[in-house]
Amino acid sequence: MGVGGQLRGIPYCSIVISHDECVDLDRSDPLSEFRQRFDIDHDLVYLDGNSLGPPLRSVKERVGRLLDEWQADLIQGWFDRGWAELPERVGRRLEPIVGAEAGSIVACDSTSVNLYKLSMVACDLREGAILTDSGNFPTDLYVLGEVARRRHRELIVTEPELLASAIEGNFGKGNLAVVALTQVDFRTGRLHQLGTITESAHQVGALALWDLSHSAGVMPIDVAGNDVDLAVGCGYKYLNGGPGAPAYLYVAPRLAEQIGNPITGWFGHSNPFLFGSEYQPAPGVNRMQVGTPNVTSLVALDEALSVFSGLDLKTLREKSVGMTGLFIELVDQMLGDQVEVVTPRDGTRRGSQVTLKHSAAGEIMMDLLKRRVVGDFRPPEMMRFGFVPLFNRYTDAWRAASELATIVHTQV
Amino acid sequence: MGVGGQLRGIPYCSIVISHDECVDLDRSDPLSEFRQRFDIDHDLVYLDGNSLGPPLRSVKERVGRLLDEWQADLIQGWFDRGWAELPERVGRRLEPIVGAEAGSIVACDSTSVNLYKLSMVACDLREGAILTDSGNFPTDLYVLGEVARRRHRELIVTEPELLASAIEGNFGKGNLAVVALTQVDFRTGRLHQLGTITESAHQVGALALWDLSHSAGVMPIDVAGNDVDLAVGCGYKYLNGGPGAPAYLYVAPRLAEQIGNPITGWFGHSNPFLFGSEYQPAPGVNRMQVGTPNVTSLVALDEALSVFSGLDLKTLREKSVGMTGLFIELVDQMLGDQVEVVTPRDGTRRGSQVTLKHSAAGEIMMDLLKRRVVGDFRPPEMMRFGFVPLFNRYTDAWRAASELATIVHTQV
Repeated sequence: MGVGGQLRGIPYCSIVISHDECVDLDRSDPLSEFRQRFDIDHDLVYLDGNSLGPPLRSVKERVGRLLDEWQADLIQGWFDRGWAELPERVGRRLEPIVGAEAGSIVACDSTSVNLYKLSMVACDLREGAILTDSGNFPTDLYVLGEVARRRHRELIVTEPELLASAIEGNFGKGNLAVVALTQVDFRTGRLHQLGTITESAHQVGALALWDLSHSAGVMPIDVAGNDVDLAVGCGYKYLNGGPGAPAYLYVAPRLAEQIGNPITGWFGHSNPFLFGSEYQPAPGVNRMQVGTPNVTSLVALDEALSVFSGLDLKTLREKSVGMTGLFIELVDQMLGDQVEVVTPRDGTRRGSQVTLKHSAAGEIMMDLLKRRVVGDFRPPEMMRFGFVPLFNRYTDAWRAASELATIVHTQV
Repeated sequence: MGVGGQLRGIPYCSIVISHDECVDLDRSDPLSEFRQRFDIDHDLVYLDGNSLGPPLRSVKERVGRLLDEWQADLIQGWFDRGWAELPERVGRRLEPIVGAEAGSIVACDSTSVNLYKLSMVACDLREGAILTDSGNFPTDLYVLGEVARRRHRELIVTEPELLASAIEGNFGKGNLAVVALTQVDFRTGRLHQLGTITESAHQVGALALWDLSHSAGVMPIDVAGNDVDLAVGCGYKYLNGGPGAPAYLYVAPRLAEQIGNPITGWFGHSNPFLFGSEYQPAPGVNRMQVGTPNVTSLVALDEALSVFSGLDLKTLREKSVGMTGLFIELVDQMLGDQVEVVTPRDGTRRGSQVTLKHSAAGEIMMDLLKRRVVGDFRPPEMMRFGFVPLFNRYTDAWRAASELATIVHTQV
């Protein structure tokens, strides 16, 4: 970790980090037992859990059980097996993960649909522009762009580093409706200061709408304590719900009774099974549900979230920062200036990924895949490595850095 | 079947239909082999496939295989296993089921979300009111109501029998944007004449938006030949995709390039994996996708739809009309005027269900469930019996009618 560096409080005096040191870090890792709950090959260095998390071993059994319930109970499963309550039940599992109040989250739809609903809600509640940054995920930029167009609002896309100054001083009350951001930039790994930005937004009378897709599950997120208004997130990245798993949405309880869902489907109704002709919104956040819950994929997500039960998220964050920091130091040590580290070196300013830049990034990533190191390529020049504290190992950082060095030194 | 009645072309001269005759009808049923492809108990009379279809035997294996692919291929499954193309692939399976042109359907989201998108599209394309009927499914009424409110359109809810006259003569060009209906009334089983109503709508310059949730899979539906503009439908009723399965949507190819999705998510983008900052709609109906496809539940639906491959939908319709007609005659014979048959007695005017009215409907249905006859109760007085030609038997009609008669005669 460089001269005088520190990792998890242990000072390192060696100039060079050795493989043995990485092995020792794995040995003393309080989370090391969790990897075996995932069905992931021992030799695989999977650094793409920020795109698609791997399956928990118990998910297949649980989904199989759901298919058996469907066979045995048919239509009665909706009531006898509690299928109809799955959006709320999964929501309750998500509350400690993002630091939300009881009954403030439902799991439903996709992240994009949820972002649409909540950005429409934000425009219902507040006049003025929509502010985002260029580091937002493309689907967020697309959804916000069309909502702004249809609602006759200005969409302001600032650079991430100019965000604070873009809010402060540039907006008076009523000029800004909502600040809509993704907490961790999917390309660079830069982490926004959720509390500070939410507070700035509130100071100019705007709402804060956060996309937690790239942060929930690898760090503590205190949406309640930070007075966040609205949030959405994805079920298939760090939450390991499976490909295209249902997403979720959060509405601060102080707002939930004043908002209306633009998509008034029957599962947002206070009593869907009365089949009444008049729409009557459900109490609280449940009004933000729309159609019939996707039971098969909700049980997979429900099972996947069981791994977080009782976990201290600070421990996850410590390991996450430890692994990403170690990887950056190993890259420095083994590759020097042959690649550019795009991700902030300050651990407090990065999410759980490291992004490297190289002109041959696409070819290098193909070669890494052959060597059983899975990251991903973001055109044109970025290689992205996600480190997930529940199943990644410090030695994964070593393997990734050393394979990368071999490729860059010998082949590119 | 009454004096001089006919069933499947065979004249019946008996006053009373016997159980033996029902057994004979099952014996000569060209679809009788299909029941064994479903994992459904032999003694169960399941007359609720119009709420939730039962599982095909092959679905569990197929979903298990998907979970194995997720384990083995992780992020690469999106490309190597064609997950990203599932919405289109499932759409292609649906085309013959609803009589749609090639490449005009995608499977995505829920029916409610799809109806929202397409009713917004209809308002983009046409000025004027939204017309529906009181027999529409509640979620449709709710969604249309809120779209009308937000788009400053009038929502006109007519009685089903007044629909034709409500369109003809009451609207000039530009006064009616869209006629949005469910083809089969979920309560009464009344079947709308899709071609006639679509033509009437067009004559006054309106679009026709059909919800096919209660008709697709039990009768031929020629959306292309009838010049339907827009349609949506559900994956978990007659299509047997599992609880909360993904829904689908249809856009006539002549319209697809002119429309814009109000929810501009990345899977409606022409090249989602370029991660560009500007939204560029995908060609054709694919632009109506929104978020990441729900792979787990799409493969279940894909497998479920395989049962329709190569099927002649006219044969399904003949058996459907045969079973519902038989059930009505058996109810007449065994219960007389002790229950009211709400569903049209004219086979050309009903879907694949029979609805009976009785003041103790709720209690009767509870008792039927104990006797392994599953229908459903629609408050306050309706009992609904769905007959699905792929797995129901003529003897199911006998069992349902005779158990019903026993309950009504002895207990209520």
